[in-house]
Amino acid sequence: MSFQEKIQNKWDQKKFLCVGLDPVFEKLPKHLHRKSPKQAFTQFLTQIIDRTADIVCAFKPNSAFYEAYGAHGWEALEYVCSYIQAAYPDIPIILDYKRGDIGNTNHGYVESAFEQLQVDAVTVQPYAGKESLTPFLEQTDSFIFVLVKTSNPGSGEFQSLELDDKKLYEVVAEHVAVEWNTKGNCGVVVGATYSEELKRVRTIIGDMPILIPGLGSQGGTVKDIVTNALDSKKQGIIVNSSREVLYASNGTDFAEAARSKAQLLSDTITKEL
Amino acid sequence: MSFQEKIQNKWDQKKFLCVGLDPVFEKLPKHLHRKSPKQAFTQFLTQIIDRTADIVCAFKPNSAFYEAYGAHGWEALEYVCSYIQAAYPDIPIILDYKRGDIGNTNHGYVESAFEQLQVDAVTVQPYAGKESLTPFLEQTDSFIFVLVKTSNPGSGEFQSLELDDKKLYEVVAEHVAVEWNTKGNCGVVVGATYSEELKRVRTIIGDMPILIPGLGSQGGTVKDIVTNALDSKKQGIIVNSSREVLYASNGTDFAEAARSKAQLLSDTITKEL
Repeated sequence: MSFQEKIQNKWDQKKFLCVGLDPVFEKLPKHLHRKSPKQAFTQFLTQIIDRTADIVCAFKPNSAFYEAYGAHGWEALEYVCSYIQAAYPDIPIILDYKRGDIGNTNHGYVESAFEQLQVDAVTVQPYAGKESLTPFLEQTDSFIFVLVKTSNPGSGEFQSLELDDKKLYEVVAEHVAVEWNTKGNCGVVVGATYSEELKRVRTIIGDMPILIPGLGSQGGTVKDIVTNALDSKKQGIIVNSSREVLYASNGTDFAEAARSKAQLLSDTITKEL
Repeated sequence: MSFQEKIQNKWDQKKFLCVGLDPVFEKLPKHLHRKSPKQAFTQFLTQIIDRTADIVCAFKPNSAFYEAYGAHGWEALEYVCSYIQAAYPDIPIILDYKRGDIGNTNHGYVESAFEQLQVDAVTVQPYAGKESLTPFLEQTDSFIFVLVKTSNPGSGEFQSLELDDKKLYEVVAEHVAVEWNTKGNCGVVVGATYSEELKRVRTIIGDMPILIPGLGSQGGTVKDIVTNALDSKKQGIIVNSSREVLYASNGTDFAEAARSKAQLLSDTITKEL
């Protein structure tokens, strides 16, 4: 199944929550601290996955948290991806790695994501332009989320620069919607922390999917997201939460606490629909 | 020694060539094809390193070529970095990984580059702004090259957009020079394929280092680089060549052929000075 088919199935079941699989060794439950990071990560995350799988629309590992542990971290990432694929083949995996090299070199990142890890979708950087991302864009069975407006407080430094009557992030969103999405495999990333920008981007891109990080810890609210980001079918959003779910408890009940938190967030989203 | 000290020593010896350590299994000499990618990469690259070490100012592995082989690729990258550090501690390593997540998450990439791989410098994406890159910028012992004008044919899509009387890449260069470089640990990346832009960026950033990819295979010439990119001390450039050096021969003489090519490129640079 393609990413688009997998995510559509989840949306049809009114599932819009994505759980970010971003392990931080120091934040893991104490009983896992005796293990190696690789062992601790895989034990922690497989339990999180098992207890949230029926709630989420997607899982989103962010490569930075694994790379921090070098090759062992990559082994943990490989394990987590293959675990999801084996146990929950209907749940899409979005690899949040924000890559963006020039053409020739991007083949390595395409290989890494779609052949080695076999994820369904990735996040990429827009700065080098469409031509540089050709190796990604020609992957018709996979999906590409392009950074448009990032959730961090200082994202406006360049993204909100004015070009004639538009801001840079609006120009990027337009290019992605009009010129990059010719094969129907593009979406965008817009932070939950910027409601006005979410609304603007939705107007620009029509019914393309929006991956929305920044809920909770970073300050975005479900109400803002639902009000501003839904597409014409009242779908089209992938709302990510990482820390709030993963670290809902640091006791042995962590997976159950993560489930409760995920359920609460998911219910909050569907209630606002 | 800091990156700045290491590179200054090399510049003082009139060394400006950087060899990009970008292994592609299919392009390796035939006698290495029987080995695993990890074995083939480390055997190939350690010989390239040994035969070019006295010519170069830096080595630049690009993470994409290693990640293509997952955890095994990362092991090869770890090996290559530790080999250079042990055998040639005076040669700086620039990890070309073009990362750029938001603040909290960048700690993983900082850890990966400066603690795990212990490289001297990295390349990063500007799109999320200075605030997002704080975990990098506060690494005063390390060095950060920010993408300003990439070498690919389509890099103008956003980088050449007009904002009042400036282009986006000029604004990025200005921000990096004036606001980001408060700890003196920033440089920029400008492709050899864009002479006018190289000249503009040099005017904007003063004597900050410029990492210049795109020589040779991509079409940039040494004359263009030297004419446009030198700083006020006739230094300040790191001119990268990858494919032309690495794959100068695909026989058993590959390391000697790489040395000859590197020597030729280095001589061409010093002759133009």
